[in-house]
Amino acid sequence: MPRSRRIVVIAPDSFKGSLAAPDVCAAIGRGITRAWPDAELRARPMADGGEGTLDAVLAAVGQAGTRRVARVAGAHGSTVDAGFGMLADGVAVVEVAQAVGITDAAAMAIPVVERDTSGVGQLLSTLLDSGARRIMIGLGGSSTNDGGAGLLAALGLRLLDASGHPVRPTPTGLAALARIDATALDARIGQVEITIMSDVNNALTGARGATAIFGPQKGVAPAQVAPIDATLARFASLAEAALGRRAADNPGAGAAGGLGFALQLLGGEFRSGAEVVAGLIGLDAALDDAVWAITGEGRSDAQTLLRKAPFVVAERARAHDVPISLLSGAIDATALTELNAAFDGCFALPAGPTTLDACIDGAALLLADRAEAMARLFSAQS
Amino acid sequence: MPRSRRIVVIAPDSFKGSLAAPDVCAAIGRGITRAWPDAELRARPMADGGEGTLDAVLAAVGQAGTRRVARVAGAHGSTVDAGFGMLADGVAVVEVAQAVGITDAAAMAIPVVERDTSGVGQLLSTLLDSGARRIMIGLGGSSTNDGGAGLLAALGLRLLDASGHPVRPTPTGLAALARIDATALDARIGQVEITIMSDVNNALTGARGATAIFGPQKGVAPAQVAPIDATLARFASLAEAALGRRAADNPGAGAAGGLGFALQLLGGEFRSGAEVVAGLIGLDAALDDAVWAITGEGRSDAQTLLRKAPFVVAERARAHDVPISLLSGAIDATALTELNAAFDGCFALPAGPTTLDACIDGAALLLADRAEAMARLFSAQS
Repeated sequence: MPRSRRIVVIAPDSFKGSLAAPDVCAAIGRGITRAWPDAELRARPMADGGEGTLDAVLAAVGQAGTRRVARVAGAHGSTVDAGFGMLADGVAVVEVAQAVGITDAAAMAIPVVERDTSGVGQLLSTLLDSGARRIMIGLGGSSTNDGGAGLLAALGLRLLDASGHPVRPTPTGLAALARIDATALDARIGQVEITIMSDVNNALTGARGATAIFGPQKGVAPAQVAPIDATLARFASLAEAALGRRAADNPGAGAAGGLGFALQLLGGEFRSGAEVVAGLIGLDAALDDAVWAITGEGRSDAQTLLRKAPFVVAERARAHDVPISLLSGAIDATALTELNAAFDGCFALPAGPTTLDACIDGAALLLADRAEAMARLFSAQS
Repeated sequence: MPRSRRIVVIAPDSFKGSLAAPDVCAAIGRGITRAWPDAELRARPMADGGEGTLDAVLAAVGQAGTRRVARVAGAHGSTVDAGFGMLADGVAVVEVAQAVGITDAAAMAIPVVERDTSGVGQLLSTLLDSGARRIMIGLGGSSTNDGGAGLLAALGLRLLDASGHPVRPTPTGLAALARIDATALDARIGQVEITIMSDVNNALTGARGATAIFGPQKGVAPAQVAPIDATLARFASLAEAALGRRAADNPGAGAAGGLGFALQLLGGEFRSGAEVVAGLIGLDAALDDAVWAITGEGRSDAQTLLRKAPFVVAERARAHDVPISLLSGAIDATALTELNAAFDGCFALPAGPTTLDACIDGAALLLADRAEAMARLFSAQS
């Protein structure tokens, strides 16, 4: 291998709770540069449609994208500033967590049955107003469990009780839902291409549905699961009838408390978040003449193989015949056999016995040290 | 690199408190074989002249060496069975710890001022009786601090008080030493080549001497340091005069409580234990057509660079143009810059946050997992 042009692609996910993906790239890059001062580094921070997706895409496209802000309703109804990205060719990038994120303390302070996704619908309206022709929407990290009723209502779907009065698009409001009128739905939504980015394959309702599986972490009490699930099932069947399309049983309908259902009901295409992001950030082009690629995440385990960001990076790298190594905060030893089949060496951060807190606090330094060691080993072969 | 003949040399030191060097070799070998089923593994367990030296040498030379046992005095005077090795060409391999080891609970139960090294002298007599022409003697892990007086007395040196009566070769006995008579010293010791294996460079006495630096871990109380040091200094000057050779200020005279002094006084050559072991186990020949070598130790830090076993292995590997990587239980991050200059990648055992106990208990599994990852990365380069 000529020393003059070593191109290395660095494409990790974020290390959740520790470092954002661009910071992971920078730390790994410092280590590689210590080993190979002449290396050409291509930082391509990855994401899976959840938190960090917007930043990763904007970082990768550089001047071809701009970050904007829309003032919309949060899950609690009060106004929030939701960031989104406008790329070339009318492509918009949205994270639902920017409007209805689970890290919004004010939203989390009210009961989950009072939260809704109207703000996400308002955000889509803003994009339609701006002339977006394609909307890439990441579903990770929502605080809501409204089946996407808020989104549909904000786009003009009318949710009515038995007396013909509007109901609120919350689980509480939907309990009184009797009829849905789709005649006022924003017609422009049918003209736009919607790509849903998620790594959740659950259906909307049932034992593996949004409420049963993801409700509890949003505050759904055990006794609430069954009634809320029934409310969403009825809402879904009325909405499907009103729009003449089925979606509740689709994989991913249960993502983001049912936003996956609402967006598929509007014609959105459900895809692996990491794969969509890989496309948006130009990962294939970056890999084209690379000698090596590194990916990683906070913790790698059997879930990683379910098309998480590092796995998608590995597939792309293999397609380009580029060796791909994994550097994560920790590696689950019970998944090593499968991980070894996907990566050219799986490595973890610690340099000896240590605590989780020390790994989180020292992640940037540890990443650089480990990446340097990996680069030295990788290039040792004579 | 053709897949048909990948020769890998595995030459780690022991992981003290966890795995003996041959077990470290086996664990690393398992990992490499998982990555490269066709690899030819050359296990060359290393040692530094301390505990494990005899086992490492006997493991490496195979049928060219035999393990024997001599019944000699322990540091406490009672009989112990001391193993030693006889190789081809009259080469004998001895660990002083086999006779006067710090792990001998019975010896440690009596005060350090009552312990002596007579048993080591008896062991040398046995070797001379057996026709040994070259004695390689490892100095690590002794419980004694007698300046090697016991060894010399066992070989015929007469230690006398002011009345001409013999004194015991212990610190207590030597306090009454007035005269040394070397006329009865076993003349055969002058015909044998003695190679001292140690990684301790201290002189016999003084602020960096055996008593001040290593005495405390053997039970020398703070108030005893000065008087014992003075006793050894007087013993040394009398012994030097009696034998017509100086040795007390030589590097390594303070090794093993002064055995380094006594053996140099007998003409022994002081050498890095790891270098001697590397020679005995045929490390150079093993490296000759290898594609990669791995070494390691329980913990790597700045001390490693002071010609510890992994450093010596690295030097030999470089001389043969063989990439050499480090896989240790832990790596001291503050020494990484220097370690990186010596090794093609420095790696540690943990796969995530973990405790020292978990690393020690799981060392064999962790070694295999890490070695596999390293092999996959090493061979990833297309």
